[in-house]
Amino acid sequence: MTQANAYAAHSDQSGLAPLTLERRELRSDDVAISIDYCGVCHTDIHFVQNDWGMTQYPVVPGHEIVGRVTAVGDGVTGFSQGDIVGVGCMVDSCRECEPCRHGLEQYCLEGPVLTYNGQDRHDGSMTYGGYSEAIVVNKDFVVRIPERLDPAAAAPLLCAGITTYSPLRHYGVQAGHKVGVIGMGGLGHMGIKFARAIGAEVTVFTRSEAKVSEAQAQGAHHVIVSTDDAQMQAAAGYFDYMLDTVPVQHDLNPYLSLLRHDGTHILVGLVEPIEPTVHAGNLVFGRRVLAGSLIGGMPETQEVLDFCADHDIACDIEMLDIRNINEAYERVKRGDVKYRFVIDMATLREIAT
Amino acid sequence: MTQANAYAAHSDQSGLAPLTLERRELRSDDVAISIDYCGVCHTDIHFVQNDWGMTQYPVVPGHEIVGRVTAVGDGVTGFSQGDIVGVGCMVDSCRECEPCRHGLEQYCLEGPVLTYNGQDRHDGSMTYGGYSEAIVVNKDFVVRIPERLDPAAAAPLLCAGITTYSPLRHYGVQAGHKVGVIGMGGLGHMGIKFARAIGAEVTVFTRSEAKVSEAQAQGAHHVIVSTDDAQMQAAAGYFDYMLDTVPVQHDLNPYLSLLRHDGTHILVGLVEPIEPTVHAGNLVFGRRVLAGSLIGGMPETQEVLDFCADHDIACDIEMLDIRNINEAYERVKRGDVKYRFVIDMATLREIAT
Repeated sequence: MTQANAYAAHSDQSGLAPLTLERRELRSDDVAISIDYCGVCHTDIHFVQNDWGMTQYPVVPGHEIVGRVTAVGDGVTGFSQGDIVGVGCMVDSCRECEPCRHGLEQYCLEGPVLTYNGQDRHDGSMTYGGYSEAIVVNKDFVVRIPERLDPAAAAPLLCAGITTYSPLRHYGVQAGHKVGVIGMGGLGHMGIKFARAIGAEVTVFTRSEAKVSEAQAQGAHHVIVSTDDAQMQAAAGYFDYMLDTVPVQHDLNPYLSLLRHDGTHILVGLVEPIEPTVHAGNLVFGRRVLAGSLIGGMPETQEVLDFCADHDIACDIEMLDIRNINEAYERVKRGDVKYRFVIDMATLREIAT
Repeated sequence: MTQANAYAAHSDQSGLAPLTLERRELRSDDVAISIDYCGVCHTDIHFVQNDWGMTQYPVVPGHEIVGRVTAVGDGVTGFSQGDIVGVGCMVDSCRECEPCRHGLEQYCLEGPVLTYNGQDRHDGSMTYGGYSEAIVVNKDFVVRIPERLDPAAAAPLLCAGITTYSPLRHYGVQAGHKVGVIGMGGLGHMGIKFARAIGAEVTVFTRSEAKVSEAQAQGAHHVIVSTDDAQMQAAAGYFDYMLDTVPVQHDLNPYLSLLRHDGTHILVGLVEPIEPTVHAGNLVFGRRVLAGSLIGGMPETQEVLDFCADHDIACDIEMLDIRNINEAYERVKRGDVKYRFVIDMATLREIAT
């Protein structure tokens, strides 16, 4: 494969536009994938806008990728042409450090190679993501999409799904636990589904009375309007876990006081300084824990896909024509999507032909 | 018992002065104790100075109490006259809530009754602490001091000891783990001893080169001067646990980055807002945990005393004449004590006679 059509952001503009780019030749342990669907993650927007000051243009976003195998390298035995497969946030890691050896490639001591805006460990080339007709990825970072899953709705499981599934498992959420889910976007609505499937009692926190019925429709057993002091106070000390998916700064203290002793507040969306700051007493006086979690490793990424197939769980998506990507970004920024845009890559092929 | 001589702080002064106070009559489940020793905790100073705005004067501080049983109520079977016993930070709790039923009275949902400046659950009277000749305490909040322990050096185990022992156990420190201890005061030096006794590799963090040999003498396998950037950077990602005993605001971020993935930073000293604030990325990108812990429950308070007897562990103390208590407070504030003052209550009896 020599060329693929993609949508890229360039340094002279924040919007995305068509681009023709080189995809690397197949290595012996590579899988070539024709992309059918790619989810739109808020992280894509951060990279396009260079919000974190680390974008190298041109950048092709997209790390919730589902497609069909078109070719495999000589050394690949697990995948064959025609297989429906997925690629998430990582495409390589050192494979040798302790986290890598334990299937926690996201915490690779040398840093995982990100699916886009990353640097290939072999030839130093930049990685390009899933807003594209095709991608070539090392076999160990390709997962199988179970047949029972709708491929389009499975795409967001590769970031939004694994990001919420992994911490619920790691921090020990079990049937009967009381789990609060803060935020009801792409991550939050998946958190509700997973916590329910595990058997937990799920309470959604929303700032708006108008979203109560929506939260119930998503499967929440209870809904608390976080701007209602009486509702918040009535829940003091009630929860075993909070799954906090809010990606912007917000006050954690009111939520910490809703945890019982030994409760755990899990951050998966916030990667900024915590403002307003946490009062240490909220941790000390209840032996509470403030925890973080980042996506999930490759074994667990396969696990979440299988879990979703077993439990009939899918992401709620809105299918997107790639020509409307810039408008979609504006809607994501406003929280105006239920709950994840997924690009139908057929629309990219229409432009290219 | 009707009267006991004590040292109390009054609302018109910050220093301590002699006082004669009523001790309650023995109830059927009470133990009356003649106090021999009482440790001086920084918390005592906070209460005397009303730093937390909750002091009710007169306050008799002291919650690291060791003495001899002088009488027991009709319903007491576990203690007899002459037994060497201890009283820590709590003297009662609701006994019925879930934390209480699990021996975690410090997290009692109604709040434990503190040893001083607390309110008796039966008659509403104020509780008075251990800077006193005598105390009357419910049997369930009295622990046995093992014979092998020096009673004076055992006193600080009832706060400084249990406060550091409990989180090492609860958060799962085991032999071979790499544990950092931040702060080398009353709490920190006990943390070193406990972590070593468990079989962990212990590193002490100190701001001063001058304290390196002192830390080694305390049993530290390694010492890192935290003001030396090179030493700090060389330890990035090294530690499984940090036991943070620093009671004043300090930047946690440099320490968080020294934790490996899944590492745990345990706060036991800080009960203020965390300033500077924690960067959420330091938790998310390594699945790290920021945790709190408060003293320990009654079963574990007995456990730490037995553990110290089994492992020949004692607090390093400086014996104090109660007439020098105000000077001792100034020295505690300056960190000028190795590592805990313990009041010899014989000096109070000299004044009283």
